[in-house]
Amino acid sequence: MAKFITLEGIEGVGKTSNLNFIQQLLSDAGHDCVVTREPGGTALGESLRSLLLAHSDTQMSADAELMLMFAARAEHLNKVILPALARGQDVLCDRFTEATYAYQGGGRGLDLAKIGQLEHWVQGALRPDLTLILDAPVEVGRARAGRRSTPDRIETEQDAFFERVRAAYQQLAQQQPERICLIDAVPPLEAVQSSIEQSLRKYNILD
Amino acid sequence: MAKFITLEGIEGVGKTSNLNFIQQLLSDAGHDCVVTREPGGTALGESLRSLLLAHSDTQMSADAELMLMFAARAEHLNKVILPALARGQDVLCDRFTEATYAYQGGGRGLDLAKIGQLEHWVQGALRPDLTLILDAPVEVGRARAGRRSTPDRIETEQDAFFERVRAAYQQLAQQQPERICLIDAVPPLEAVQSSIEQSLRKYNILD
Repeated sequence: MAKFITLEGIEGVGKTSNLNFIQQLLSDAGHDCVVTREPGGTALGESLRSLLLAHSDTQMSADAELMLMFAARAEHLNKVILPALARGQDVLCDRFTEATYAYQGGGRGLDLAKIGQLEHWVQGALRPDLTLILDAPVEVGRARAGRRSTPDRIETEQDAFFERVRAAYQQLAQQQPERICLIDAVPPLEAVQSSIEQSLRKYNILD
Repeated sequence: MAKFITLEGIEGVGKTSNLNFIQQLLSDAGHDCVVTREPGGTALGESLRSLLLAHSDTQMSADAELMLMFAARAEHLNKVILPALARGQDVLCDRFTEATYAYQGGGRGLDLAKIGQLEHWVQGALRPDLTLILDAPVEVGRARAGRRSTPDRIETEQDAFFERVRAAYQQLAQQQPERICLIDAVPPLEAVQSSIEQSLRKYNILD
């Protein structure tokens, strides 16, 4: 049966490298896999991603940000994720609703019940089969991400913001261990990838 | 005390002419008035308006459309409407939440309870002091609007859609007569304007 896997974490924890690694593992195991991302993944979603990450609007209200995220998600689910799962393809998504709990809930302090209500409306009972959260201290992520390109609107937040995001991610993993797995992203890449592969087997994504 | 007035109606009922007329009445009465519109009214809102009305995405999911509307509204309230009212200025807005009930609720058939929940989250207890709904049969509106420019994504809907929108508007006026007033927009402009002026007095917008 087609699996829905999401990869989460703050900036600099190695999401992109590990997304490619997971895709390769799924492919090697004979899975047909669609790789996508949030916010984005559709024409509308990518337009919203640009609006959400643009520097031109640093004072966007937190409510507006939350609703744009779920608007993009509704579109993404209806046009990409659900059709792929229905065709029997795995879906591997760079960030999903757990990022909303972490960034808008933990980071911005928005009411988690409000996020939960939107999650219920937009997704119904659908949840990822496995959410992998790459976890590392904020300073480690920042040091790694700092070597890259110019930070976007959300990446320019202060360390305290990302500490709250990280704590929210850790809490999600504690609360829903049956489908959310925290991966220590501090060790060298090979060790992280070994942890990821073990998780994919433990959660029955790979046989 | 500053008043919040919204003007509603399907295409072709004369919103623009009457918006200008109301603005003039308020100005003549010595009111300082901010005129704005939805979706739009802020940089983010105008970007979302473009996305919402663009023809490129005719299959946008109804949930996505609903959340984009309220995202734009949250921004509009926080950046334009509430600050203006706080400064003592009247706000005259071309469409507001009643349009969401009419178009997304009536037109698209979305759950009215969902709209009500979003209204509560984004607006709290804030409602317009007066909502004027310009009412005319769909064929009258279409005939008048037809003389204008190319229709946008929503304007290209079929007559049955606009019949549902009109019915939803009429129902809102029936349900909340204390702040929503239906204006017959079929008579000549002077007669419609006379009705509008009477309403503004009846609802204590003008002395």
